[in-house]
Amino acid sequence: MKVDGTSYCTIWLADDGRRVKVIDQTLLPFRFEVIELAAMADAARAIKTMIVRGAPLIGATAAYGMALAMDADPSDASIASAYSTLHATRPTAVNLAWALNDMRARLSAIKPEARRALAYKRAAEICDADVATNRAIGEHGHGIIRAAWDGKGRPTRFNILTHCNAGWLATVDWGTALAPVYMAHDAGIPIHVWVDETRPRNQGASLTAWELGKHGVPHTVIADNAGGHLMQHGKVDMAIVGTDRTTASGDVANKVGTYLKALAAHDNGIPFYIGVPSSSIDWTIDDGVRDIVIEERSAREQTHITGRAASGQLVEVQLSPDGSPASNIGFDVTPARYVTGLITERGVAPATKEGLAGLFPEKSPSRVDR
Amino acid sequence: MKVDGTSYCTIWLADDGRRVKVIDQTLLPFRFEVIELAAMADAARAIKTMIVRGAPLIGATAAYGMALAMDADPSDASIASAYSTLHATRPTAVNLAWALNDMRARLSAIKPEARRALAYKRAAEICDADVATNRAIGEHGHGIIRAAWDGKGRPTRFNILTHCNAGWLATVDWGTALAPVYMAHDAGIPIHVWVDETRPRNQGASLTAWELGKHGVPHTVIADNAGGHLMQHGKVDMAIVGTDRTTASGDVANKVGTYLKALAAHDNGIPFYIGVPSSSIDWTIDDGVRDIVIEERSAREQTHITGRAASGQLVEVQLSPDGSPASNIGFDVTPARYVTGLITERGVAPATKEGLAGLFPEKSPSRVDR
Repeated sequence: MKVDGTSYCTIWLADDGRRVKVIDQTLLPFRFEVIELAAMADAARAIKTMIVRGAPLIGATAAYGMALAMDADPSDASIASAYSTLHATRPTAVNLAWALNDMRARLSAIKPEARRALAYKRAAEICDADVATNRAIGEHGHGIIRAAWDGKGRPTRFNILTHCNAGWLATVDWGTALAPVYMAHDAGIPIHVWVDETRPRNQGASLTAWELGKHGVPHTVIADNAGGHLMQHGKVDMAIVGTDRTTASGDVANKVGTYLKALAAHDNGIPFYIGVPSSSIDWTIDDGVRDIVIEERSAREQTHITGRAASGQLVEVQLSPDGSPASNIGFDVTPARYVTGLITERGVAPATKEGLAGLFPEKSPSRVDR
Repeated sequence: MKVDGTSYCTIWLADDGRRVKVIDQTLLPFRFEVIELAAMADAARAIKTMIVRGAPLIGATAAYGMALAMDADPSDASIASAYSTLHATRPTAVNLAWALNDMRARLSAIKPEARRALAYKRAAEICDADVATNRAIGEHGHGIIRAAWDGKGRPTRFNILTHCNAGWLATVDWGTALAPVYMAHDAGIPIHVWVDETRPRNQGASLTAWELGKHGVPHTVIADNAGGHLMQHGKVDMAIVGTDRTTASGDVANKVGTYLKALAAHDNGIPFYIGVPSSSIDWTIDDGVRDIVIEERSAREQTHITGRAASGQLVEVQLSPDGSPASNIGFDVTPARYVTGLITERGVAPATKEGLAGLFPEKSPSRVDR
């Protein structure tokens, strides 16, 4: 998407055809800086320190990390070492493991002298596939937004609420939840986005607000507490969020607080959609509340926060009293009954086992069971 | 309640019987400092700058402000001038206007030479009445907690979730939502409190966590996003919050985000109680979502936050990008259907017109209408 009028992806090959460029997301929203990854270790560091984040972008960066390793040394030992270094950066990231397994299998199957070329080619394919998936989600979601906007008589402002960052910064381009927003905005629908700040890590206030602002999409940052009031008063026309993991029945694990917004949308008759790349669907489980283990993160992310001081410097400050413990739950699960629809790259499915199986018949366990 | 073993109220008369002492709440949770109000202007400044906050404490401070004015000059002109100065500090605060009207009426009715004594006596009565109201709320709420704890077989931890600060710091003593917590804790029930940080002003993380910690009540600070997940997983036994305004039908206006927690409690079968001093009931309205006008506050409270830097200094930092607008809604309304009960000083009422009228027959408009 655009940054001050120039189109960007979050990761791309440098002009030398060897090095890889990424946006340093740790500096956002206060500084926009592109850095170069010149070796596999740079890619590993970028993932570990969250210079890049978001499941699809982590997978893409890991794939290019394997390519950089093959550029330096295309041996079997180099494949093994790059795999284990990259895998250790964010061990729970599903796309990371998927991309690394894919690269390792393909590279191990061919002669060392062919590995460099294949690695770069395959990394580019992984990036292109992510962009294609997100573009398709965007097109299907754009259709939903347009129908809702038409249905309301084309008001001069169509309000969409989102939580966390499921925008282009989390992917290679477009984003998942935000792809429909960008497409609808670019097509002239007068979108305005309510951006949940998304405590404790504030991905909404720092990343979603930044990317919407740079692309020119009108938006307003709100406390995570505010969405219910806005929905009660007709100020939200639709909610669209992303997902970290979706069950075969349509339960949605996403950034903590998503469930509360889904409840409020349900209570006020507001459609609540999820942008779902099919790679995030876990076909092996049904009951998300029961079966998805939720990560607990460092309490310090709750008790402290970093922002820009009047001096211009980034400063970390403590918010809660000495001696008060804090807890930091990363995700929650929104039961399928509160989800209006899952916007996948193949179309929009109702959040049910049958709905998902209808779009992905080859993946559905019922094909195996029955 | 206690601060490191010593009992405090939030406002009290100095040993000279003239000056008034308050806790400087702007320094919490990082510094505990008592300051003296030596003149009416000091009281006005304390209210305006939020050295004191919370509706009951604002009322008590205004009453003592009138007493300080009478101490300096008991003339009619002094009554009028103190009234207008104090009234202008927080013009929308209901208890402020109530206390000032009460004081002005009583003082105007007597001779100037008797005003000083009456003013101090009446200010003390207003404080004592607040403490008595909150103690009664605490006793009724303690009964509810004890019954729930007994009903669950007296687990070794009884988890109560609260939002914002409706503790002793917002009142003269005990608090409203937290009075039941303190009574139950002091009586030996193993209470643990989940403290919503309560963005954007963070009254939970900075005030509720501080007062619970200083009194010795086990607690954990959480993001406002986390309560739904905790409720889904059986980690919340009860929620108790305060109220800024309650309608005759039991709709509850309270700090923004309360509604979202009430929805999650309802979805998970968890009792959701409100600590309601009857002074907060507005007998003239029924439909809170329709009829209660919600204050919009400065966007800067959302885009910036103040905390303690590593240097020990309090530093304000910016959280969201330059050019991203923010909105700051102060309150929301929880419809009565999501409220399990209203804990008043006269007992616990169902959140219905009939329930409230049963406890307050003299106030109910139905007495007038029929």
